[in-house]
Amino acid sequence: MHTSLELAAFCKKKGFMYPSSEIYGGLSGFYDYGHLGTKLKHNFEHLWRSFFLGLNDNFHEIETANIAHENVFKASGHLQNFTDPVASCKKCGFHVRADHFLAEHLKRRVEGKTTDEYQELITQNKLGCPQCKSVLTVSVLNMMFPVKLGVGKVQTGYLRPETAQSPYVNFKLQYELLRKKLPLGLALIGRAYRNEISPRNFTLRQREFVQAELQIFFDPQHPPSESDFALVKDQKLKTTLILDREQNKVVERTAQQLVDSGLPEFYVYHLIKIQEFYFQHLKISPEKFRFYQLSDQEKAFYNKYHFDLEIDLAEHGWTEVGGLHYRTDHDLSGHQKISQQSMEVLEEATGRKFIPHVLELSFGVDRHIYALLDLSYEMSKEREYVVLHLPAKVTPYFCAVFPLVKNKPEIVALGEQVYQDLKQHFSCLYDETAAVGRRYARADEQGIKYCITVDFDSLQDHAVTIRDRDSTQQERVKISQLKEKLALLFS
Amino acid sequence: MHTSLELAAFCKKKGFMYPSSEIYGGLSGFYDYGHLGTKLKHNFEHLWRSFFLGLNDNFHEIETANIAHENVFKASGHLQNFTDPVASCKKCGFHVRADHFLAEHLKRRVEGKTTDEYQELITQNKLGCPQCKSVLTVSVLNMMFPVKLGVGKVQTGYLRPETAQSPYVNFKLQYELLRKKLPLGLALIGRAYRNEISPRNFTLRQREFVQAELQIFFDPQHPPSESDFALVKDQKLKTTLILDREQNKVVERTAQQLVDSGLPEFYVYHLIKIQEFYFQHLKISPEKFRFYQLSDQEKAFYNKYHFDLEIDLAEHGWTEVGGLHYRTDHDLSGHQKISQQSMEVLEEATGRKFIPHVLELSFGVDRHIYALLDLSYEMSKEREYVVLHLPAKVTPYFCAVFPLVKNKPEIVALGEQVYQDLKQHFSCLYDETAAVGRRYARADEQGIKYCITVDFDSLQDHAVTIRDRDSTQQERVKISQLKEKLALLFS
Repeated sequence: MHTSLELAAFCKKKGFMYPSSEIYGGLSGFYDYGHLGTKLKHNFEHLWRSFFLGLNDNFHEIETANIAHENVFKASGHLQNFTDPVASCKKCGFHVRADHFLAEHLKRRVEGKTTDEYQELITQNKLGCPQCKSVLTVSVLNMMFPVKLGVGKVQTGYLRPETAQSPYVNFKLQYELLRKKLPLGLALIGRAYRNEISPRNFTLRQREFVQAELQIFFDPQHPPSESDFALVKDQKLKTTLILDREQNKVVERTAQQLVDSGLPEFYVYHLIKIQEFYFQHLKISPEKFRFYQLSDQEKAFYNKYHFDLEIDLAEHGWTEVGGLHYRTDHDLSGHQKISQQSMEVLEEATGRKFIPHVLELSFGVDRHIYALLDLSYEMSKEREYVVLHLPAKVTPYFCAVFPLVKNKPEIVALGEQVYQDLKQHFSCLYDETAAVGRRYARADEQGIKYCITVDFDSLQDHAVTIRDRDSTQQERVKISQLKEKLALLFS
Repeated sequence: MHTSLELAAFCKKKGFMYPSSEIYGGLSGFYDYGHLGTKLKHNFEHLWRSFFLGLNDNFHEIETANIAHENVFKASGHLQNFTDPVASCKKCGFHVRADHFLAEHLKRRVEGKTTDEYQELITQNKLGCPQCKSVLTVSVLNMMFPVKLGVGKVQTGYLRPETAQSPYVNFKLQYELLRKKLPLGLALIGRAYRNEISPRNFTLRQREFVQAELQIFFDPQHPPSESDFALVKDQKLKTTLILDREQNKVVERTAQQLVDSGLPEFYVYHLIKIQEFYFQHLKISPEKFRFYQLSDQEKAFYNKYHFDLEIDLAEHGWTEVGGLHYRTDHDLSGHQKISQQSMEVLEEATGRKFIPHVLELSFGVDRHIYALLDLSYEMSKEREYVVLHLPAKVTPYFCAVFPLVKNKPEIVALGEQVYQDLKQHFSCLYDETAAVGRRYARADEQGIKYCITVDFDSLQDHAVTIRDRDSTQQERVKISQLKEKLALLFS
């Protein structure tokens, strides 16, 4: 198994991700996506969009400013509560996240405690500053980045710490524009910013990151997809419920079993859809994925139900990459209170007024890109280089065209012709330099699924060789049938 | 002709763009894109990508952090020079951009002057504070937003004021990853942030906005596309050169004529390609577009050649939406100096070392979205509502399917079937509520190019009616041929 340092080095070497502002020594918690990483990220986003926006015709995407009004975060509670506990040394200036610091020393999870509790744990265990041995004092730090707008009497805005608030603030307007139908889904793929005290683990914990979220607003008396549950009730889900915690087990349970355990049908229906996205579209192998139920202490008080989506990463183990959160009317009520604008909607048939509830499907895009690379990475002993087994629909280049030699103009011309045709339909790369074995190796490292070689025989038989990245098996295909053949393989 | 206020009201009413954080009274200079605006924006970005990245196989897209290291902006000069002149009243706190304030009062352009010169103009013309008549003092304001990172000894980063610096900072690494070939193009679609003193004109001058830029790095001895100039030399360009200024004329000149006037071939070649993008892909009518040459006083000192791309907007007139900038080695030299990392590359054949030059193709995405809406907007007297003549490839929905009536289940079922098939291939909307005339009107307002109606006859003749948004003409098409017919119309 590879280490995460090996993966990070590989990602930089191939142009997936690397530290931002690197010629200036980098900026802790900030990363850039290179030419391959950007393609991978866009492909993931495209897949996410088509799947989740495809769930309902009344799900729509919006794109909003990253800097928002102070009152947005007063209403959401971020101004007051979006804090991390920090242990600081007044003598030498050392800072660390108190919960992480304690977890490391006590070898157990230490979360959700008060400042006083953290302070007590530090004192009890006689933990001093790791740099100068002085006393550590615990305080809280708000993780939002304020931004001063204007000149003179400046106004304070904030870089949003999550994309979620934008759809909540936009809800009432979009609801009216979209002719007052529920459920209404507002999706957003965008950046969020958090002043993490200790950014770490490459792109897993950054100060600037991308989220893909779908906020479904619905009438709690008619929850989304309620009629569809019957269709999925026997499907099995990979779950770690609270009762499985002690043994850290992943248990297969049917949708019906989860409903019997107390979860609402609409919630379980969305677990099923999410799992379908991972297994059928991202091609994550079933033993690498689970839904992890949060306890009342762990989840935010306003989440009635909260499961993390977790992927089993090399070195890091089970890692949160997203979550399904039933947030009730917490968010819209908060905005109603602070903005003094009604968030209520009217059920015309009965005259009933209510504040819609929210089901949030939340995905960390950078964490998914990391996970896809991590799960696809194989240091092949046989080939003596890295093979990146990325799924066809997300890998940066689906195919590549190689003329076998570059000193035979007819072969080069035919290769060029095949390439020009294929790139109209697929992400395709053309490469004519170095021996073909070297080109296969470069392609495997970039995750290119099929290499198409034009050789001397091609001039006679009008056929080319298709090589599969994973099996290395080769197949001869007529050029006239190449496009159809590749279209079948693109899944 | 419509006013820009009418356009802004329409954009909000239909869900294109509207003020951000609006339930909290909005935030000056920040806008959100609603469900239709987001689709329009993404379609524009997709078109931009395919066209400009398609110019050369060695042009690649990257995606980078929005917050960057302080030294990035020390090297670029933004820390020192990215300032606006501001006229302030010490008594009442009033602030305004000095150049805009003077231009308004003197009825002429007043740009590129020093603080002292602005002060003198204000004094000479006896201009006082518009609020309290007191003295106005001119100073400079840096337009970047600083962000404090970390805790304790904080580090200052900056929200980037332009996307351009990211490709420059990434150049050397990407050049090496991409096997040291020039020209190398690094494209980036992303956000930029400027603390505008007076944000105004809806989405034309925001504090947070999106740019689409292509930075082409090249060997000045072998400029990009040098061999392609011969192919385009007789093509005509819409230009306003410095010599046309006095009469504010737009003159058609051939590429060769521009070269004869002193511009390099590679530069003019890219003017041609840019114009092709506007005319053939964005379908901008030729009389609404021009290249506007900047004088030495107007352009930045490091730009050897600088033409603005301008679109003629209702009410605003000719408006800058982008630019083509030959920046020489200014940027890479600056980063080499401050980072102490060599930006030189080696020409293997000769051993010659040099710092590549940069040709920048820069586009303001929000301004293009505004321009597309502005040019497409028609308050139709005949139809008595707004028709949005957006081109097929950028309009949010290309087509819509309407069952003529919703109380005839066979018609609804057939409509649903046609819709499910079409939405696999085109952006397509389904609408079964209200009379068909009302649905046509709603579709026209959203810019839907073709409305497809399933009626009683459809059950017999297996055909539907296609209605063209612009001509309102209708055509009967077999359902079996519908997809091919629409594919032909999608251009």
